Amino acid sequence: MRAWQEAGEKRRMDVNRRVKMVSPGRLVIDEESLPVPGRNEYLIRISSVGVCGSDIHYFKHGRIGNFVVEAPLVLGHESSGVIVEAGPEADPNRVGRRVAIEPGVPCGHCEQCRSGRYNLCRDVKFLATPPVDGAFCDYIAHDQHFVYDVPDSLSDDEAALCEPLSVGIWASHKASVEPDDRVLVTGCGPIGLLAAQVARERGGRVIVSDIVPERLEVAKSLGFEELHDPRAVLLEDSGIEVDVLIECTGVTGVVRGGIGVLAPAGRAVLVGMAPEAQQMLPIASIQTGEILLAGTFRYANTYPTALDLLLRKRVDVGPLIGGRYGLSRVADALNASEQDPSRIKPMVVPSLAD
Amino acid sequence: MRAWQEAGEKRRMDVNRRVKMVSPGRLVIDEESLPVPGRNEYLIRISSVGVCGSDIHYFKHGRIGNFVVEAPLVLGHESSGVIVEAGPEADPNRVGRRVAIEPGVPCGHCEQCRSGRYNLCRDVKFLATPPVDGAFCDYIAHDQHFVYDVPDSLSDDEAALCEPLSVGIWASHKASVEPDDRVLVTGCGPIGLLAAQVARERGGRVIVSDIVPERLEVAKSLGFEELHDPRAVLLEDSGIEVDVLIECTGVTGVVRGGIGVLAPAGRAVLVGMAPEAQQMLPIASIQTGEILLAGTFRYANTYPTALDLLLRKRVDVGPLIGGRYGLSRVADALNASEQDPSRIKPMVVPSLAD
Amino acid sequence: MRAWQEAGEKRRMDVNRRVKMVSPGRLVIDEESLPVPGRNEYLIRISSVGVCGSDIHYFKHGRIGNFVVEAPLVLGHESSGVIVEAGPEADPNRVGRRVAIEPGVPCGHCEQCRSGRYNLCRDVKFLATPPVDGAFCDYIAHDQHFVYDVPDSLSDDEAALCEPLSVGIWASHKASVEPDDRVLVTGCGPIGLLAAQVARERGGRVIVSDIVPERLEVAKSLGFEELHDPRAVLLEDSGIEVDVLIECTGVTGVVRGGIGVLAPAGRAVLVGMAPEAQQMLPIASIQTGEILLAGTFRYANTYPTALDLLLRKRVDVGPLIGGRYGLSRVADALNASEQDPSRIKPMVVPSLAD
Amino acid sequence: MRAWQEAGEKRRMDVNRRVKMVSPGRLVIDEESLPVPGRNEYLIRISSVGVCGSDIHYFKHGRIGNFVVEAPLVLGHESSGVIVEAGPEADPNRVGRRVAIEPGVPCGHCEQCRSGRYNLCRDVKFLATPPVDGAFCDYIAHDQHFVYDVPDSLSDDEAALCEPLSVGIWASHKASVEPDDRVLVTGCGPIGLLAAQVARERGGRVIVSDIVPERLEVAKSLGFEELHDPRAVLLEDSGIEVDVLIECTGVTGVVRGGIGVLAPAGRAVLVGMAPEAQQMLPIASIQTGEILLAGTFRYANTYPTALDLLLRKRVDVGPLIGGRYGLSRVADALNASEQDPSRIKPMVVPSLAD
Repeated sequence: MRAWQEAGEKRRMDVNRRVKMVSPGRLVIDEESLPVPGRNEYLIRISSVGVCGSDIHYFKHGRIGNFVVEAPLVLGHESSGVIVEAGPEADPNRVGRRVAIEPGVPCGHCEQCRSGRYNLCRDVKFLATPPVDGAFCDYIAHDQHFVYDVPDSLSDDEAALCEPLSVGIWASHKASVEPDDRVLVTGCGPIGLLAAQVARERGGRVIVSDIVPERLEVAKSLGFEELHDPRAVLLEDSGIEVDVLIECTGVTGVVRGGIGVLAPAGRAVLVGMAPEAQQMLPIASIQTGEILLAGTFRYANTYPTALDLLLRKRVDVGPLIGGRYGLSRVADALNASEQDPSRIKPMVVPSLAD
Repeated sequence: MRAWQEAGEKRRMDVNRRVKMVSPGRLVIDEESLPVPGRNEYLIRISSVGVCGSDIHYFKHGRIGNFVVEAPLVLGHESSGVIVEAGPEADPNRVGRRVAIEPGVPCGHCEQCRSGRYNLCRDVKFLATPPVDGAFCDYIAHDQHFVYDVPDSLSDDEAALCEPLSVGIWASHKASVEPDDRVLVTGCGPIGLLAAQVARERGGRVIVSDIVPERLEVAKSLGFEELHDPRAVLLEDSGIEVDVLIECTGVTGVVRGGIGVLAPAGRAVLVGMAPEAQQMLPIASIQTGEILLAGTFRYANTYPTALDLLLRKRVDVGPLIGGRYGLSRVADALNASEQDPSRIKPMVVPSLAD
Repeated sequence: MRAWQEAGEKRRMDVNRRVKMVSPGRLVIDEESLPVPGRNEYLIRISSVGVCGSDIHYFKHGRIGNFVVEAPLVLGHESSGVIVEAGPEADPNRVGRRVAIEPGVPCGHCEQCRSGRYNLCRDVKFLATPPVDGAFCDYIAHDQHFVYDVPDSLSDDEAALCEPLSVGIWASHKASVEPDDRVLVTGCGPIGLLAAQVARERGGRVIVSDIVPERLEVAKSLGFEELHDPRAVLLEDSGIEVDVLIECTGVTGVVRGGIGVLAPAGRAVLVGMAPEAQQMLPIASIQTGEILLAGTFRYANTYPTALDLLLRKRVDVGPLIGGRYGLSRVADALNASEQDPSRIKPMVVPSLAD
Repeated sequence: MRAWQEAGEKRRMDVNRRVKMVSPGRLVIDEESLPVPGRNEYLIRISSVGVCGSDIHYFKHGRIGNFVVEAPLVLGHESSGVIVEAGPEADPNRVGRRVAIEPGVPCGHCEQCRSGRYNLCRDVKFLATPPVDGAFCDYIAHDQHFVYDVPDSLSDDEAALCEPLSVGIWASHKASVEPDDRVLVTGCGPIGLLAAQVARERGGRVIVSDIVPERLEVAKSLGFEELHDPRAVLLEDSGIEVDVLIECTGVTGVVRGGIGVLAPAGRAVLVGMAPEAQQMLPIASIQTGEILLAGTFRYANTYPTALDLLLRKRVDVGPLIGGRYGLSRVADALNASEQDPSRIKPMVVPSLAD
């Protein structure tokens, strides 16, 4: 860590490679000077970045709902790194530390922020969400209060994956999963597989569902025994009844089927983003069963829990990781899951020689 | 009350007129012998019965969703009466008392009942829901634990209207309305006008919305100052933003518009029954705003609160009452609101000479 | 099970040995005829009964607070058995089944019962609580809705211990223990060791504390690594800080010390019964830290969860069990824990030849 | 507002009189230069300041618990004022506005702040709490996010009293007071009378209790009809039973008596600060009744609600106000309530000629 005490020096000499999406499907690498950390920020050298479905979606379509990529954008928001320099009001003692980076920095002052719901802050700056650049690069500057020290026993990849794990933690928290609750997790992508592990860790009896056999195999390797495959039998015909639905596909039919198998007073947490702004939902079931349906948007105050669950090995991200890619191979990373569905979560590792 | 001590005698001599729907739109009056109260039941002489939208719907269409009227059915479930005889295990001290009748009698033993959610009991017997007869008649027998003593200062009509008031109490309870919450109540039928009063009583700042001018007038007479008329401006264009939606129309466009004006972390309580089993809902808004959407089905443990709110004059049912009809004029009562929208709640009063 | 179809026959011939406490420290065995199950009851042959601290307390002192043993009383309320005969309105299909017996049968109709808090019913009949006899006997009659089918893979002892496990489930439920919560469980008696396992199953990071080395050893054998021994260092000086206190000793100094190590917004659940009606509590800490302090009394709706946790081996009662005693050795069972503190939970097994 | 555009000019010329407590019972007035607002602060000219029990306590005893007045301290933390100058990063558009001043400014970054519990921030700076000076002066500088615009129809006194009203709002929020809840408010000082009004506004049926006849008279003038006077009959003997206790005296006997009259599942919110660090509490009642006991410390996110309740005249502070005093008469203000108990809330108004 001594080396970084000359961080200012280093910064002037070093170069920051940044992978930018210039249009759907097209990436370029720019070499730029290092960012100067703001008053409350750190300069962070990126160690590892998970590829998220939203990155893939931006890469393919150039937009997600109302978020449109208009200028070249650096993607990647599930990241970890090492603090290399502190801004003037950031704690200098943390320079040199490995950190998990929470990508959203809220305003801190609005009604939502002050009520503990900073994920709903309208002025949040969130990595890789236009117009804010992300972490497929060598260095970023980030607010000191949204980076978390990583215990030695955790890897850089694990630290990066605190981000999707946070989504899973948030889902179970919203659903108040308790021991003995029957929980259906629809969709065995990264979010689903992490949400399912958290629900199990809370004591829930978890059924996971996916249409892709490779994904169900990964679920199996994580110890899930109750697997549902809609190609074999539809949820509606499966005889399944659950207390909680954690919906991670966003597919209308699945949302509907999942709500349909909820017991009275069941709780449905919607995590998967629907491609459409509106969906046909089974309103009669929702009313007669007094179903509680909770929208979720990102997460708040979850990083300490994510690090703890990983540290105590209550959640395993190992089987999810599907390859490591250097900066020059980000396009490959973005395409990996589609080409091989068992690669649940490809990682971008800037330090990798390609 | 002395008179009723010869209740058994009376029962043998008296006759029970019962207004039965034999097919959509067609009612007949049968004269029958009085029901014999079961082990835990009372025999109750009906004083007053409110006409509910569900009665009107059965009367017109012969069904509500999966509930189909197959045999002749007595409608009416918002009722009050006087206890005239006690079954062998019912408390005989209550004979002679005026009571508000909670129409749903649950099994008392299932998971839902034991968890305090008896409204979700699958074995509930609910007045005027096929195949259980209702209260458009002179006498019914009803469980001793689901009739509530009525204070002297409350009228029979008020006692009967504890039923729709319960729906309003339940809605605000589900939404946890607190002082300073902005609340939008869509639909100024009886449920909407009662729910709005309860929300106001909890400290909420209430906006009421309806497309029918006569109903907005009634709202005004109840002291509501913020009125929204969708014919003048759509909710979407109104600039309204609220914390809570209490949706009492069931109309898809209104549900959607109402959810659309919710602030982040807003809560939507669905009270109005949609005619369709499925509805197009604004899923993107629900997710990005972390909206909580709660289905409601009837109510539980609300009658004491309803009586208390009426007793303390925190809720006023007077302006809602739209005429009183004897048993021979039940059809008129069922048609009254359609013919004159200012008649929010027609009442059937069996003792009325027609 | 065929044999029991002649249950009525059997009942007439069989004898019911009942161990009665006639005065503090003195037991007698009476032989009586079998009880006749009431309308909604089963006749149950007792398989196994755990010895509870309250049994020991009644045995020594003849009272617990306001509950005074005035007539001879059969102790024992943590029991399992086999249904041998059904009352006229009890489901006859369950005759022959092994069941866990929930000892408290509430009225089912009061405000508490109807709100899902049947443990607070003032008219509850609870085994081994004066004047209701308990289960240190061959047969009891019990309400059909408060006995639960036991899966084949669970033992009679496990079924019986659903009762103290319920107390542990209730404690964590009241505290809303979530992943990453730091939880301190004070007292490693049966309740403490079960509550600690449930808190861990919900994802909590659990510290257990006890002054008796043998009990800490049992905790260790259950996999707990963070052990606190107040003889080595007082809680106050331990540097421990937790989010949740599950207090299972009832000892004033421990309650106080435990509350004292709660973080801001900490939650204290009081399970251990204090010997005194009043205790000195650290009110200043409770106020400045906005501590939530929850009294607990028994449990509600926990048996299905208890059976599920045992079935899935998320909770282990094996290391707690400290000997099995026939009916003639109940006094030995009641004294066992005091003589050998590693015998956390002695069991009474009526079928054992002594 | 034009006048204030030369605020910097004004500041250099004007003088800031500050009333300092130099030792218990002794005040001096210093004339100082105006404070310079920090980066995110406003310079505010004080309009009105309520005298709080804590001010009186500091004035008499020089300390409250662990908070000890070591250097001269300006008291007063219930204040309103006018913004006269904006710090470099504070919104300049608000200069000239009348504001209610929330006295506690938290760090904004700790776990408590980020979870919406900023009142529990360990680094909060709170007016008139050593070593932070308060508002018995002409000018203070205060964080821009903790001052709230005051509607024209509200007076300066009303704006200042948002502070104690916030305590009352917080109490009812913590107790989740709902319509029909029976609520006992013990202590009719300013906090009690405000808390009682908020509980009533939420629909609660409120009983107020105090030993001082003048205070009960003020309660009566606020419309409370159920008054309890412990000199006439002790709570224990009163037959009162309530769902919620809002305890505003801190007196051990009253806390105990109040908890004692709670119904099963009752909720006790402790608002009044006890003089001792420990109190004898009725632990047996807390346990057998599953009482929930909540400590409270100040409040969070209540100012908008306070302003709304005052604006809609749902809470009336008029009858509480007991005289207005200029800066030279602060000692009189601090002594007023003791000399005349009907003076519930004396106000200090710096602009008053004495």
